[in-house]
This record gives sequence, C-alpha cells and structure tokens, in this order.
Amino acid sequence: MNDVQGNSSEPSVMRIGVLGCGNVGAALVDLVRTQADTVEQRTGIRLEVARVAVRNMSAPRDVEIDDGILTRDASAVVNDASIDLVVEAIGGIEPARGLILDALKNGKPVITANKELLANCGAELYAAAELAERDLLFEAAVAGGIPIMRALRESLHGEPITRVIGIINGTTNFILTKMTDAVLAGGAGDYAATLAEAQALGYAERDPTADVEGYDAGAKAAIIATVAFGVKVVAGDVYHEGISRVSGAEISIADRLGYCIKLLGIIEREPESGDVSVRVHPTMVPKQHPLASVRDSYNAVFVEGGFVGSLMFFGRGAGGAPTASAVFGDVVDAAINLRRGTHGSLGDLHEARVLAIDETSAEYLLSLDVADQPGVLHAVTGVFASHNVSIRAAEQEGNGPDARLVFITHSAQEAAVQATVRELGTLDVVRNVGGLIRVIGD
Amino acid sequence: MNDVQGNSSEPSVMRIGVLGCGNVGAALVDLVRTQADTVEQRTGIRLEVARVAVRNMSAPRDVEIDDGILTRDASAVVNDASIDLVVEAIGGIEPARGLILDALKNGKPVITANKELLANCGAELYAAAELAERDLLFEAAVAGGIPIMRALRESLHGEPITRVIGIINGTTNFILTKMTDAVLAGGAGDYAATLAEAQALGYAERDPTADVEGYDAGAKAAIIATVAFGVKVVAGDVYHEGISRVSGAEISIADRLGYCIKLLGIIEREPESGDVSVRVHPTMVPKQHPLASVRDSYNAVFVEGGFVGSLMFFGRGAGGAPTASAVFGDVVDAAINLRRGTHGSLGDLHEARVLAIDETSAEYLLSLDVADQPGVLHAVTGVFASHNVSIRAAEQEGNGPDARLVFITHSAQEAAVQATVRELGTLDVVRNVGGLIRVIGD
Repeated sequence: MNDVQGNSSEPSVMRIGVLGCGNVGAALVDLVRTQADTVEQRTGIRLEVARVAVRNMSAPRDVEIDDGILTRDASAVVNDASIDLVVEAIGGIEPARGLILDALKNGKPVITANKELLANCGAELYAAAELAERDLLFEAAVAGGIPIMRALRESLHGEPITRVIGIINGTTNFILTKMTDAVLAGGAGDYAATLAEAQALGYAERDPTADVEGYDAGAKAAIIATVAFGVKVVAGDVYHEGISRVSGAEISIADRLGYCIKLLGIIEREPESGDVSVRVHPTMVPKQHPLASVRDSYNAVFVEGGFVGSLMFFGRGAGGAPTASAVFGDVVDAAINLRRGTHGSLGDLHEARVLAIDETSAEYLLSLDVADQPGVLHAVTGVFASHNVSIRAAEQEGNGPDARLVFITHSAQEAAVQATVRELGTLDVVRNVGGLIRVIGD
Repeated sequence: MNDVQGNSSEPSVMRIGVLGCGNVGAALVDLVRTQADTVEQRTGIRLEVARVAVRNMSAPRDVEIDDGILTRDASAVVNDASIDLVVEAIGGIEPARGLILDALKNGKPVITANKELLANCGAELYAAAELAERDLLFEAAVAGGIPIMRALRESLHGEPITRVIGIINGTTNFILTKMTDAVLAGGAGDYAATLAEAQALGYAERDPTADVEGYDAGAKAAIIATVAFGVKVVAGDVYHEGISRVSGAEISIADRLGYCIKLLGIIEREPESGDVSVRVHPTMVPKQHPLASVRDSYNAVFVEGGFVGSLMFFGRGAGGAPTASAVFGDVVDAAINLRRGTHGSLGDLHEARVLAIDETSAEYLLSLDVADQPGVLHAVTGVFASHNVSIRAAEQEGNGPDARLVFITHSAQEAAVQATVRELGTLDVVRNVGGLIRVIGD
C-alpha cells in the first residue's frame, strides 16, 4: 500500500537525478513533467527532475532539458546532497554499478532498468541497498511495463511459488509468431528470412545475438529466480538455447501435434531440496495454454503457486513508453517510502544449488530422418529403452527417402535423452537426428 | 515495497480475528498456520489466528480450531483490544458492514473479500478506513487470486488508465467456453443444456441468476471503477446484460467473422469530461485479442494505459484456495503497515457522472431474418442511414425462408442503434431482429 494520506498542506519536494538520457531516460523526464500534478494530488509529493547526466551535452534528444539541469558529471549527481533519489538509465555494468553503489551509500534510493547489471552483480547491489536501508527498485528490468517484480516481491507473500515460466524476450516472440503464421499459411517459415524482416521493421537489432541466442532472456530469468525464490542466481548460471535453429518443419510438426513453439524462460525450485533450475530454450507449448496466445512482441510471465494456482501477467515487454512507465511507478514508490522513512527489501538472499541442464527433466520432441525399411522402428525404440527414456507418442511421416519418425517422450532426464540422441546418430538406419525440443504440459 | 528489514530480534506478534469460517475463512486459517514461519522469517512478524467467530459452534468445518478460539460473538472479536487485525469472511451487507466499521473505529485494519458490500457501501467503508488511518484491503473481492487491486492501486501510479476490460465471472466464462466448443464441433451450443451441465459440475449454482444475468460481474465492475478512477460508483450504477440470451447461432456467426463471445465488464473514463461508463454485457472479442484465449472458469483483467499500453492479468477468479491466498497476502501487507504505523489509501473519492447505456458508443453486431427479395438490403440500409448508424460490414447468409442479413456497424451511440433496431422491427421485409451484440476492437 503506497498511497499516503494527503493531509500535509506543504508538498514534500523530491528531487530526482537521472543518469542517462536515451530512450528510457528521456521518456521518464517527460513522464515526471506531465504526471507531477497528478502524483502531488494523490500523494502530497512533488516530483522534480533536478539533474540529468549525459555523455554528450549537445547530442539531440527526445525531450527538452534546461542547460542548468544537464551535466556531464554523473558522479557529481550521485554525490549531490540536494538530490533525493537516483534513476540509473545508462545500462551496462560500469560505470552504472559504481554510481548505484555511491548513490545508495549516500542514502539515495535507486531505480534502474539495467538487467545486465542486476543479472551479474545483483547480490552486491541488493546487499548495498539493505545496508543503506534504501530502496533499490527495478520493475522495468524484466518484462518492461508488466508489474511482475512487484507481484513476486509483494502480492505472493507466503505463496509457495513452484515455477515461473515467461516469454521475456519480445524480439524472439515476434520472429516465432511470424514464422508460425507463415507455416500455417502454407509457407516455409524460414528463420533467416523472418529475422531479416524483423530487423527491417525494427523488432530485431542489427546484431541480434543477445536476443536470438537467449542471452537477454537468460539475464531476465536470473533476476526472476532471485526475486521469486530469494536465491543468488547470476546470468552465468542460466542455461540458454536460442531460436536460430528452430525450423519451419519443426513448427509444422508441433502444430499438427497441438503445440506452438515459444522461447521460454523457465525458473523452477524443487520443493524438497531447494535446488533451482533456470533455463531458456525453445519449448513446445500446448495451444490451449495461455502462453500460446501471446503473440508478436508481447511478453508474458506465468506463475504457478501452491495456493493461488496459475497466474499470468501479460503486456509490452519493451519500448520507451512502457519501460519509462514502470520506472516512473518505482520512482513514486521510492519517494513515498523515503518520506515515510521506510524501504523495501528482498530479505537475505541465500545460496542455492543451480541444477545443470543435464540434471533437469522434461518431455521432449525428437524427430529422426530414417530409412523406410522394416525393423527401423524396432531398432530406434530399442535405443530409447536402453536409456530408460519412455515414449509417449510416436508417428511416421512421409515415405521412402522422406521417411521421418517423430517421438514425444514421457518426462525424462536431459542426460538420458542426450545419450539417446547420441546413440541414435550412430545407427545406420538413421539418416539425420533433428533438434530436440522440450515440451511443457498443460 | 512491503518487506521489512529483519533486524528486530523479537518478532512482533499480530493477532488476527477471523469473522466467518466457511470456504474462505477456513482456508485462511489453514494458510496462516502453514505459512506463519515463512512470513516470520521474511518480515519478523508472527501471525496468529486468535479468534474465529462462527454462527454455529458445532458445525462441521474444513479446519480444526480450538474451542478457546471459536466464538459465536463476532462483535466481541472486533471490540477485543488484544486483536490486532480483522478478516471479514461472512459475506453479505449486514452484519458485515457494522462489524467492519466497528473494527476500523477500534483501530484494527480490515481485510475482506466481500464484493457485495464493497459495491454497495464502499465509499462509506473507505472513508471510515481513512478516518481511522488503517488499511481496508480487498484484493480477493475481484478476480480471486489475481493481484489486480494492487496493480490498480499501486503499480500504475501516475499511469493515465483509459479502460479496464475484464472477464470477471468464472461461471459465465465456463458456460460460454463450453457453448463455443460445442458450436465449433458442429453441435448446437444450447444455453440451457450447457447451464445444466455447469450446474452438475459445480461451476454454476442452483439459482444461477447472480452469475448468468451479470449481477456478480456488475458488482466487481463497480469496485474496479472505484479503484481505477477514484470515483464513487455503486453496483446500481452498472448496466448489466447476462448471457442467457446468447445463442449458438450467434456464436457461430461471431466465429465466422473472426470473433468469440465473452461476457465482459467494461470500465471506461472519458478523458475530457471525466464521465465514466461501467457496464457488463456479452461482447464480440477478436480471436487474436488476449481475452479471447481466456477459457473455462479462468478470469482475466485487461488494462489499457496511456504509457504502459495494454496489460493483462490472468488467473483463477474463485475457489477457496486462490481467494484465501489473496486474503492472506492482504493480511501480511496490513500487518507490516500496522507495525510501521502507516496505511494505504484510495485517496479522496470524487463524484463522477456515470453514463447511461444510451450514451455509450460501441460497434454492434446485428442479425436480421429477412424476406429474400430484391430491394431488401436497400430498405434495411436506409434505416441504418436515417439514424446515422454507419455500416462497416454486411453479409447475407442463407436463401429463401432462411435468408439472414448480418451487419457490423462502425462505432455508434447505443441510443441510435436501439432506435435503428426498433424501426427495423417495423419493416415488412424483416421477419425477426436478432439480439444486438457489442464488439470490442483489437
């Protein structure tokens, strides 16, 4: 509950120092200006952008800022005693990390959307905020305008969360949506062509690696794991596989079996051991699952709790306006908390074992190009059986040189499935082993 | 931010008085017991169920409660100085209203899931909470376990919300889902038969009126309007139309045009005038809209904001466990706020004009059974034109005695559309005017 009684006659002024004035920084400056009256009316707090630190004073930017407010010296901003709270919108590890630590040391709450920094140095920053007894808020770092950090930090108090599954990268969801639409319309759904289209439309960057290979989603998954389970997980702990090897043929098979393919971040905790598993990979999602309906560049986060059942949060994952809106919400919260002399906290983070991908279990789709001759199915299924991987469904498509076997397994351990794949590759009757795709249940 | 620093060595004990021990009350008592350790570890607050007021001391209940805790005297609980906060789980207007007012007057925060009470007497209760400087929290009153009240109260600070659209009644969504599945499978999708099936499965009550005629959704829509826009709206202000007149034929037409039919609560504010419109009615939803994918008894609330774009919150709308989970989250929040000597607030509610349904605008689907003869389309479209209702799409289905014209209008005012319908009914060539169904855009 963050609204406060509006019974003080004099508004408290809160002076904001903004570090960086790119897309998000500029949108935030604009939001503070247009919404200051509304916030004052509701909370009695007057928000003001007091300083904006930029690298280049004369660069063109999306918002007009007085020369008296602009500065090139970010360090002076976080050390300025007249600044009440700091918004970090620079991105990257340094100098953002050092500036945030200084701001907290100086008693200033910090708001950031810097997922790279949080996913790599989160534990250090959360501990610094704890020590300083100040807020460190980062709603915008994961899934842009969707208030998922707040939900995990607050709404689900005492709720035993078992799993969080998210579509947390808009670029890859856009590409997979377009590939799927093309396949369903009878086209090829070619990855490279779709990526080029996404780049032309501005949905993918010129170097798309961070998005399409799952690094971006992996960083967000690490942050979700930390907040949802109170454990220390860094980006490097996250197994990630991107979408660059997803083919139109796989999308077509998935469709026929009642699934669509999504790039998911999956964050799980084993109730008994407390071990966590954090991974990002293309996944077959049943068409009736709410995540299957999340199209284009939208994001969604699906939370499974012991009491509350399934919850999903859906919205824009990126873009200046949604991100700035989330940052702004955090600024208001931090300002209210600061005036009250209180602050939020993630509690003490504890260490948890992060399972290697080999130790995790899932159902798998596996397709094999095979010789169309008697005994092939028998030979192939024998390999599955020898590794204790049990088959839930099998079918043959095509004949002769196009013969292909498609299997969906029951839940099996990754290590056993990988061993199965390796051995299948050695069989004479197997011409090619297609990519493995993991499956989530309803 | 509601977690607090865990630096006090002695936990503060918070003694909870629970009024009512039905489905939700019993699940809450159980949750407090099983989650008390986790909450204490995280917040330093020890939650205890100190008293439980019930009507019948010897009735069977889902949870074991010591005789020393049970009482028949609810009034004694809210007047007991040793009780720190009160959970109202009785339902209905009285005695719940009086007990809540007394509890607040005595300085006790109150948590309730009582939508009927809030939708009728909300303004009085919020004012009493304001005066007492205590929390009145009611996350569970709308959409069960979905944290939508929190999102509207907090996450969207300063976000200019323009519209909230919700599937906020699980029973009707279950019935419409089953009717639609039947129609798509080639069946009739009969309303009465589907209702009977829902009753047999426990998804609909023996007297289903409150659900199927939109009263339940209307009460929730009033609460949403109050929280989202800070205005006084009561259940009686809400226009509601239920699903009992939705036919399989309409579902089939909608499907062919790319829509599904959902019972929606729609809460809008006109940006210039500040007038609000709050209504519940069957609505054609484009199949690609995220609300279209919300099946069975699930609920979802779709929020449209100026900066954040579209957000959707999805989850279980009812049931003892999700509801109790939401109540429990509120209990933890209220306990933390109480210890900090602070509380949340909706701010001062203001009066707003609630538009009559005649004044609202939408697109409409209208189907007419007509004589299959030259000049019919001309005669019919002339009626639309004379009322300034412009047609976006028209098509004829069937021939001869089965001839039917289906129209979708551009956005038009309800009063003009109703006048059009009345006049169409007087035409000789029109044999029957089907129900109007409003359409929401993408």
